[in-house]
Amino acid sequence: MLSTTQLQELIAQAIAALPVYGKPEGLYQPIAYTLEQGGKRLRPMLALMSAQTFGGDPAKALPAAIAIEIFHNFTLLHDDIIDEAPLRRGRETVYKKWNINTAILSGDTMFAIAYGQLCSSETAMLPALMKVFTKTAIEVCEGQQYDIDFETSGDVSIDAYLNMIRLKTAVLLAASLKIGAITANASEADADRIYSFGENLGIAFQLQDDLLDAFGNEEVFGKKTGGDILTNKKTYLYLKALECAAADDRKLLAELYSRRDMEDGEKIGKVLQIFRRADIEKQTEELIMDYFNRAILLLAEINLSEEAKKPLLSLAETMLKRKN
Amino acid sequence: MLSTTQLQELIAQAIAALPVYGKPEGLYQPIAYTLEQGGKRLRPMLALMSAQTFGGDPAKALPAAIAIEIFHNFTLLHDDIIDEAPLRRGRETVYKKWNINTAILSGDTMFAIAYGQLCSSETAMLPALMKVFTKTAIEVCEGQQYDIDFETSGDVSIDAYLNMIRLKTAVLLAASLKIGAITANASEADADRIYSFGENLGIAFQLQDDLLDAFGNEEVFGKKTGGDILTNKKTYLYLKALECAAADDRKLLAELYSRRDMEDGEKIGKVLQIFRRADIEKQTEELIMDYFNRAILLLAEINLSEEAKKPLLSLAETMLKRKN
Repeated sequence: MLSTTQLQELIAQAIAALPVYGKPEGLYQPIAYTLEQGGKRLRPMLALMSAQTFGGDPAKALPAAIAIEIFHNFTLLHDDIIDEAPLRRGRETVYKKWNINTAILSGDTMFAIAYGQLCSSETAMLPALMKVFTKTAIEVCEGQQYDIDFETSGDVSIDAYLNMIRLKTAVLLAASLKIGAITANASEADADRIYSFGENLGIAFQLQDDLLDAFGNEEVFGKKTGGDILTNKKTYLYLKALECAAADDRKLLAELYSRRDMEDGEKIGKVLQIFRRADIEKQTEELIMDYFNRAILLLAEINLSEEAKKPLLSLAETMLKRKN
Repeated sequence: MLSTTQLQELIAQAIAALPVYGKPEGLYQPIAYTLEQGGKRLRPMLALMSAQTFGGDPAKALPAAIAIEIFHNFTLLHDDIIDEAPLRRGRETVYKKWNINTAILSGDTMFAIAYGQLCSSETAMLPALMKVFTKTAIEVCEGQQYDIDFETSGDVSIDAYLNMIRLKTAVLLAASLKIGAITANASEADADRIYSFGENLGIAFQLQDDLLDAFGNEEVFGKKTGGDILTNKKTYLYLKALECAAADDRKLLAELYSRRDMEDGEKIGKVLQIFRRADIEKQTEELIMDYFNRAILLLAEINLSEEAKKPLLSLAETMLKRKN
């Protein structure tokens, strides 16, 4: 049984060994830059931990785990163009440091390199791995499109929002876990359970992110709070407040979200007051706990010892306790 | 043995049946728009013909053939952003009709859908198909990057240019043929030969394209000639003229290619005069014939009856005789 640190080491080595230092440099340098940036490597970690949970060898899950990490970073690269984001993990985004065309083409190449990694999985498991990977890749694109659509849509339901974050964020975490299970020859039923565990955990994780963006402690959160409010992002907090705040507050909230001329602190302060009056923080925490508990129940249904499931359970708890 | 028309019908039906009419519409409409546009469907046709040549069932090659066609159209979608091209096959390009973000994301989704199609190939052949498909996808991106690099590079060699068009255009034609061979259980040696046949044919095909852009008959060519000259594109014609034209002409050519303020007709006329004085048309035709003959020799080496190879040979001849 490899420790978390040993798994992290496996992931780091595999990423360092990727064929991303070739020519033309204009194509590969942005790819190396992106993959060197690190990040939490949460997705490959989930894949390897899932493989171990089902008694498999994490090394067998490694190519697919790395494929997921490369895919994830590729989506960030293209998302940063779409969101016009200047910074990512404290460094300039690729389209800012180079240009949009480079970011498009280097991203495309990363997508292909991800499949190249997936390809080096054992032949027998390749069809199943490709199926979940490809389905997930399409869903992530769908999620991103819904996110874009919601920016200009006047009528976003809470269900539609939850489906959007499911697609954009949760299914990739779920797929990471399922991929680990497949490489460990888990039963189809168990692979589906670990997928649903990840899906529910992922939605909880994203809701937590929304909550921290509004109510997080800036020093612990590590970045300025209120970003979603300033960009008029229709998060769960906003949509819930539109549903359950007092009539005056609902009107005020809609008005605040239509304005872009207001001083930042004032706008954030006024929106947070509305959220507080409607008890949004507590309601969001309750929804997070709902999804988290659903995830835990699904994990419990998997026919393995409590001992075997402990690392995944504790990772799930850490993900939800995070303040950044 | 299916006729060309029957193969075209197979391809058209498979493309019409693709899962590209779903939601979100903002994501899928541009994909359907792109795939409906048609084009020659040259790549899937090569795949199916190759499968038949090796005695295989074209239906078995169909998923991979369609994957290649979707991939090809995805690259066009992203290339049109990069090249700022307003029109493609007489219709507005996706980034013009929608916007850059849509073109990025719909393209990404097409890439995933391409792999989804590939996935439905027979399990036994999937690893080999994925390997050639993924390697080729990466190479096409590399080719596009070299093409971008050459725009601003003052020092492009003829070899570098030929390698660029090999990567950007030829390897995908080669891969189409190889994929057909794999699905027909051709030997590895024959699969490699048909690949090299396609590679040489593809380079000849692109050189022909460069030649037509300069010297084609506008009415037959179907579009205005001189486009490469106006955009200062460093084609084989330009690079060869820089190598072998008289000293005065070399200087004049370099100067003409640095100017963007000249009247279109005047610039095209002056460059063509230099090309004519240096006999570039004939030299390009000779190089095209070199690559074409290499292709034909490779086809001849394949251990099949002349009868079996006839359709591919005649397609190759048609490709090189084309005036558009």
